Parts: sequence; structure tokens; C-alpha cells
Amino acid sequence: MEQKDKKNKDEKIQIKPYKKDATYSYTLGAFPTYELLLSKPEKVIKVVAHSSYTDMEGLKEICGKHNIPVEINDKLIGKLSDKENCYVTGIFEKYTCRLSEDKSHVVLVNPSNMGNLGTIIRTIVGFGIYDLAIILPGADIFNPKCVRASMGSLFKVNFQFFESFDEYRKIYENHDIFTFMLNGEHTLNISDCPKSRLFSLVFGNEAAGLDDSFLNAGTSVKIPQTDDVDSLNLTIAVGIGVYVFTNQGTR
Amino acid sequence: MEQKDKKNKDEKIQIKPYKKDATYSYTLGAFPTYELLLSKPEKVIKVVAHSSYTDMEGLKEICGKHNIPVEINDKLIGKLSDKENCYVTGIFEKYTCRLSEDKSHVVLVNPSNMGNLGTIIRTIVGFGIYDLAIILPGADIFNPKCVRASMGSLFKVNFQFFESFDEYRKIYENHDIFTFMLNGEHTLNISDCPKSRLFSLVFGNEAAGLDDSFLNAGTSVKIPQTDDVDSLNLTIAVGIGVYVFTNQGTR
Repeated sequence: MEQKDKKNKDEKIQIKPYKKDATYSYTLGAFPTYELLLSKPEKVIKVVAHSSYTDMEGLKEICGKHNIPVEINDKLIGKLSDKENCYVTGIFEKYTCRLSEDKSHVVLVNPSNMGNLGTIIRTIVGFGIYDLAIILPGADIFNPKCVRASMGSLFKVNFQFFESFDEYRKIYENHDIFTFMLNGEHTLNISDCPKSRLFSLVFGNEAAGLDDSFLNAGTSVKIPQTDDVDSLNLTIAVGIGVYVFTNQGTR
Repeated sequence: MEQKDKKNKDEKIQIKPYKKDATYSYTLGAFPTYELLLSKPEKVIKVVAHSSYTDMEGLKEICGKHNIPVEINDKLIGKLSDKENCYVTGIFEKYTCRLSEDKSHVVLVNPSNMGNLGTIIRTIVGFGIYDLAIILPGADIFNPKCVRASMGSLFKVNFQFFESFDEYRKIYENHDIFTFMLNGEHTLNISDCPKSRLFSLVFGNEAAGLDDSFLNAGTSVKIPQTDDVDSLNLTIAVGIGVYVFTNQGTR
């Protein structure tokens, strides 16, 4: 029955290179495809492999468990992939999530770069944060470039979109808010990281950062840096912020 | 006299899109071009601006100080830039440097991605490290993609290439070596960062990391991370390592 449903779904969709308004997206490469199959098998429409892919047995085994069709289609792989060395892709339905109320969050305000967004997801998962709020407008989280940069860790996070920071704040009102700003009041030294059990770390856009209205949204934090750079790269700022806040228990 | 030399140099070179074996490279965009003009004016062959660039006066003033020719050439800008919004480029001669013996270093073993290399340079400069060793083979530091990702901070660092880590170590033998490895012995918690006045932080390649021979090259260090990611992105690992080691004085 499940098998039949999958087949029907598969037949209805003619897979094309990604567009933002499509109802599906895809992973490029074996590693993120396995992450998809392990974390969100129920969203997978089908898996497509190149005829020269070397681990067809392993792929068929995991797909078989979830009644996911596996197709060998060199032409389709070539069409979807902009990289020569892609041998597997997992086509999946887009989905929505809700953040956990009792876990700490990262909040990105208008992130604009898909590669950065993916790298940020990989990084926060690496430090044990699994809840990501995105204040719109923002880069398309399901774009294959973002999925690839996340190395498939996208499938392990809850993400949720909000029209404004206020909208986010109204729903998740118990989190201690820390806004990362070049003019933040509190300098983030490793000796005196603010202590919090339930926090939201808020980061602005790559080009503009957070505007001054965020100075009063919670505790504003500055990562110390020399005058020899304009600012840190957004992904680096998120990495350091999340590393320091999630390491609090070890001090 | 200096003016004449510059002119002669300019006339000899017909500027073309970047190639690795060229004797010159270029910045793309006003910000990195100003960084070039401020840090390495003696290396600038000429500055080329688009006719719609809005701050010609400012550009001419700083170039005038150093007898650097300024040319308006929309066609050349279009040819060199792969981005629509580039209005200024600074053409410069490639150069070599030597690392400071009495300052701490970052050592990258076979970095393969030009964007990552540029982001790493921007990050270490942000944390006050101005000396970068690259163990070859490695990404081309003068590629315009690297220059752009560095936001021009490339011009503020000393970099030096070595055929092997041993060659680096023979020349700079007084630095405490810290190798960042997934199987590192020392876990880098913010509570107990190893203390060192003169250190080299060593990072491996994006795909492979450092091989086990580096376990005995000094103190091996692991950034704690969940099992939900394969590893951290290289730029994030460097950012966290450098942040923690350069923040030691504040603990």
C-alpha cells in the first residue's frame, strides 16, 4: 500500500532542476542522501543513482526498508547536478517543522546566502543545537546548494519561518535573547560568557548585521575582533557564538 | 621617476582574466581595492574603475599619493568580474613574504578551496593572527576568489609556502604546535585551553583533515562536537581554534 502510494507520487512528478516554488528538492551526493534516508525517510519520493555508483547494494537495502524506489538514470543525475562527481540524489518532498519550546535556538535574521545557511546548519548541529528560526525574507533552505552545504544535517534540524522577530518572540517568550552585534554591550570573552539554560542566539544578515533596534531585544553581545577587518564572516560568528554558549557546562 | 616606472609596467601588461601562472592578480570591488591601496600600495600596477563608480575623487586621491594610474574602462571591469556589481578593481603584482618568528602562526596543510582560504585569512586577521603558513599543494592564495573572500585582509598577512610540515618546523622551531584533529587527545573546552605565548595552530585539508602522523607533532586538539555531523567545516574549526587561543589573556 505504501509502496503503491510512493509509485503514484513518483509518476506524477517529472523531476526538473530545482526551482524555489517547486514542491520537492533533492540531495546531491551519497553522504547527504544517506542523511536524508536516515532522518526523513517518509519524505523521500525516490532515489536516483548513476550507473557507475559503487554501493548500489547498500542504497537498495536502506531504500527497501522504507519502500522507496531506486532508479538508475545517468541523464537525470547529470541534469540535476552541477558537479561532475555526483552519483546519487534523493528526491524529497518539502516539509515544515515547529521549533522545540524547551530547547535553545539559533535565530537568523534575513540570511541571504544559501551556502552560508547550509554551513550554519551543519555547525549548529555539530554543537547540539537542533532548532533554527529564520526571519523572512531569507535564503531558500531547500535549495540544493543549501542542502549540500549542510552536508545533509538540514534533515536533523527543526526550522521555522517568521515574518518578523516580534512574531518569533511572541511564540517563544521564555528564551533568553542574545543578539550578536558589532556594537554589542557585552564582549564575549571565554572567561565570562553569559550563563543561560534556555537561550536564543540571534544573528543578522551577511551584509548589514542586526540594526540598532536589536540592542534592546535582550543582551547584546560582541565577539572581540581587531580593527583590521570590517567584521567576521557570518558563519564564523555563528560558529563561535554557538561553541561558547554550548560549552558553558564545561567551565 | 616612480610615476614613469609605473606607467612602463602598466603598458607592458595586457590585463586578462586571472590565470594561476600570471605575475599579477586583482581585487574585485571597492572594499578590497582600498585594503590593497592602504596595505600594499607599492605592489599596485593600476586601478580600473567603471564609469558609473560614485567615489572617483576618493579613489584618485589615494592613488595620486602613490603615483598609481587610475583608468576608467567598463569593458575591462566586465571582463575581469564575474559579478554584476563590481565597479573597481586594483591590478597588483604578486609578491612573497616571510613569517614573523616571534608571532603566533596558523598553518594550513593542503587547503583546497579558494573561498575557504580567503575566509580563513579574514578570520585570523580578525583575531590578530597575521602569519599564515601553507603546506603545499594548496589553493592559490592570489586567485581573485580568495582575495575577495578575504575582503582584502590578504594584504595584511604574511604568508609563506612550504613543501612539507617538516620544512616549516625546521625554520620555525620555537612555536608550540597544536594540531586540530577529530581524534585529538586534548578536548578544547573553554575552561582549559592549553596556554602558550607563541603557538602554531595546524589544520588539515577540507576533505581529509590531518593524518595520524600529526598526533605526535605537538599537542593534538579536538573541538568537541556531536556525532550528528561528520566534522565541522574547516573555516569554522579555524575560527573557533583561533578565537579560543587568542582569548587566553582574558581568562
